[in-house]
Amino acid sequence: MSSTTEQATGARTWSVAEHLDDILTAVQPLEPIELNLLDAQGCVLVEQVTVPVALPPFDNSSMDGYAVRAADTERASEASPAVLTVIGDVAAGSSGTELTVGPGRAARIMTGAPLPPGADAVVPVEWTDGGTGAGPARTMAPHSAAPQGSGGQVRVHRPVTPHAHVRARGGDVCAGDVALEAGTVLGPPQIALLSAIGRPAARVRPRPRVVVLSTGSELAQPGEELAAGQIYDSNSFALAAAAKDAGAIVYRVGAVTDDAETLRATIEDQLIRADLLVTTGGVSVGAYDVVKEALTSVAEEEPEEREGEAAEGEDAEQAVHRAHVDFRTLAMQPGKPQGFGTIGPDRTPILTLPGNPVSSYVSFELFVRPAIRAMMGLADLHRPVVRATLLPPHGAGDEEPAPLTSPEGKRQFLRGTYTGGERPEVRPVGGSGSHLIGALAHADALIVLPETVTKAAWGGEVEVVLLG
Amino acid sequence: MSSTTEQATGARTWSVAEHLDDILTAVQPLEPIELNLLDAQGCVLVEQVTVPVALPPFDNSSMDGYAVRAADTERASEASPAVLTVIGDVAAGSSGTELTVGPGRAARIMTGAPLPPGADAVVPVEWTDGGTGAGPARTMAPHSAAPQGSGGQVRVHRPVTPHAHVRARGGDVCAGDVALEAGTVLGPPQIALLSAIGRPAARVRPRPRVVVLSTGSELAQPGEELAAGQIYDSNSFALAAAAKDAGAIVYRVGAVTDDAETLRATIEDQLIRADLLVTTGGVSVGAYDVVKEALTSVAEEEPEEREGEAAEGEDAEQAVHRAHVDFRTLAMQPGKPQGFGTIGPDRTPILTLPGNPVSSYVSFELFVRPAIRAMMGLADLHRPVVRATLLPPHGAGDEEPAPLTSPEGKRQFLRGTYTGGERPEVRPVGGSGSHLIGALAHADALIVLPETVTKAAWGGEVEVVLLG
Repeated sequence: MSSTTEQATGARTWSVAEHLDDILTAVQPLEPIELNLLDAQGCVLVEQVTVPVALPPFDNSSMDGYAVRAADTERASEASPAVLTVIGDVAAGSSGTELTVGPGRAARIMTGAPLPPGADAVVPVEWTDGGTGAGPARTMAPHSAAPQGSGGQVRVHRPVTPHAHVRARGGDVCAGDVALEAGTVLGPPQIALLSAIGRPAARVRPRPRVVVLSTGSELAQPGEELAAGQIYDSNSFALAAAAKDAGAIVYRVGAVTDDAETLRATIEDQLIRADLLVTTGGVSVGAYDVVKEALTSVAEEEPEEREGEAAEGEDAEQAVHRAHVDFRTLAMQPGKPQGFGTIGPDRTPILTLPGNPVSSYVSFELFVRPAIRAMMGLADLHRPVVRATLLPPHGAGDEEPAPLTSPEGKRQFLRGTYTGGERPEVRPVGGSGSHLIGALAHADALIVLPETVTKAAWGGEVEVVLLG
Repeated sequence: MSSTTEQATGARTWSVAEHLDDILTAVQPLEPIELNLLDAQGCVLVEQVTVPVALPPFDNSSMDGYAVRAADTERASEASPAVLTVIGDVAAGSSGTELTVGPGRAARIMTGAPLPPGADAVVPVEWTDGGTGAGPARTMAPHSAAPQGSGGQVRVHRPVTPHAHVRARGGDVCAGDVALEAGTVLGPPQIALLSAIGRPAARVRPRPRVVVLSTGSELAQPGEELAAGQIYDSNSFALAAAAKDAGAIVYRVGAVTDDAETLRATIEDQLIRADLLVTTGGVSVGAYDVVKEALTSVAEEEPEEREGEAAEGEDAEQAVHRAHVDFRTLAMQPGKPQGFGTIGPDRTPILTLPGNPVSSYVSFELFVRPAIRAMMGLADLHRPVVRATLLPPHGAGDEEPAPLTSPEGKRQFLRGTYTGGERPEVRPVGGSGSHLIGALAHADALIVLPETVTKAAWGGEVEVVLLG
């Protein structure tokens, strides 16, 4: 009899930290793939990206104005302007070699346009008469409306020094520079840099494809009529949303009935598109705990020596039967029954969460979210954890309510509302029942009462996990 | 001549706050629509949702165990168990009316299953022999493997009180309760509650569809070969990514050349799928500033009295011509030239950002992101702003660098790296040049030097906008 079965019968209790460690040791970052920049958003770069060509790739103007020889403007003032002959326009996108600026000459130039040969500085249009012969200009007229602006004369009212208003080639990054290190998360500014150096795609770890599947013969889909004894499936919706928030690509599978063969068949179907499987329900000590039944009993049928081996010629059904899932009792509340293992020919990781809505959500936050982020290759796996003063629930009235209690040896996670600032505070919302979805929807934090704590006094300090 | 033209010629300088106020006054939250729960994730609920049926909808077991009459277990102990006759199983999903628990009887019951008539409490399986006749049970055998478990006798080792391990109908939420208030942002726990009360969809403000369009004849697409005078388009990628981060559905349009007719035609094409248009480039004082040219000159052609009127029989091209965009000079650096207005028959808001990559990104953060969030109906429009100690850049060496300077009367936004904690610190990264994309990609904060500050000493306190 395998150790799985021993654990299933409660031979050992796992701490939250042990279960999490086991998951994070087993779950591997996904193999990198090349993704288009906007598909790679939020993903982790696995290559060091170097700059292929300098940025800017050529000396160019930082202003709309006139490309000049600085020496020609040396004594310019509004009273006594330097008068230069305008030889044409250099627009952004022109090659910059059409015109050469000789002494006494100027080329009208636009921001980003290449500095033409001969010129060594740019005079902003606001420091000139804009070629109008009148006072200082504020703007250039559009070329389409006033083509004469690219000729004639311009009066320069202020001197410029060499290189003024010129962005030098390589002034941003040089060829061979490291643009981004491996491990960088690609947000908008990193995507800006990659596109600026001409990279249409990047080698990143992809978002994991997570299949979320709820189980339970009592589950109806929202919008349907409830029959006697039925409740609505909320876990598959909540966990699909949470997995998406965590960074995954999510496939929600509606509730599967408590029948082991149906569940196996569904998992078989889903394995093809799953980097990670998450189920809810059916993992406790009942006689109809389908997940445990479907994935444990089969493991027992397997000869030990086949464990972990890829058997040739195995069909899909057989593959699913090669499940290695440990069902465990955790020293936590809610979320005592948990399972973790691998399934199918690719040994796809599977986390089997308990079915009570609050239990499954808390379990997701503690175990699935870090697993998803580890698969993405992110360094930062966990929600922020802070300390806060524990205050009584809102609406508790004048009389101080009884202190919070927690069973000895269990790590308890209560729902709370958090207020940050200089003196952070947290208040419980709702009770500890793992079916209390109403309160969960008004919480933004989990209050943690560690294994050694059995009572938490109001006004004391507690650990708080900040959600969302 | 319209006020547009006066502003275009620089008649007035707008503060950052004035420009933002103008945008947020004009931009309206989108009309609500009914979206399936998972499509509504991250959106703002516009209806108050009440609970149609109590949760749980019926009294049910919170444990796997035995439904009993509490009185029958009153004197039970391990030494002297109460022996009850098991009359059958109540699985989750059964209607709960098949069995009636009489005196001296018990029904095996699973978590979530309805409490059968006659029973008033549940004994957890761990407090019994599980019907085995042996010691305390840890679990039930699966019904499929051991059908005899639903019959025979069970020994109860501990007494239970009435209602023990029973979740009462309505114990979570009652019919008529407010489940969620209008204005709630739908995250995973709120989606959990909506699905739990049977709602397949919710009435929310949808994510705005944002068309991002860069302009510039100098722009090549990443992956292409750069010709002389060309640079890669990075703005359309960066802003598309930033708009998605802000919550929008984004359509990126590659670079449009500096030709007013081409730009007008492109905008015409895009208007159909845009709740908001964002352009970059072509809004400064140059002779080829295509956005300004395309959207200003046309406005001038319009007789004043047509302003804002929906003209019947107008074709798409005419519609685009009905642009009302104010081009403005802002007292900020980077990001001085900005435009905001409406365009087309639906008066679609349009923000025209400057073209320098850092300018466009900073402008997006300051103006477009809040506009997108306002269209979503979110209350929290802005990035977190904190105060931090200003330290010299990393790698500045032993000698203290010159203090940061900022032009008087301008609000300057410098890129920085932020370290939080008890004594938050920020360091500038890269220079103030609005073309420095390399530095931007290593920044996670904007250092704000207000209009009145011309010099910021190292060790002083500054305002910091935290990005992403």
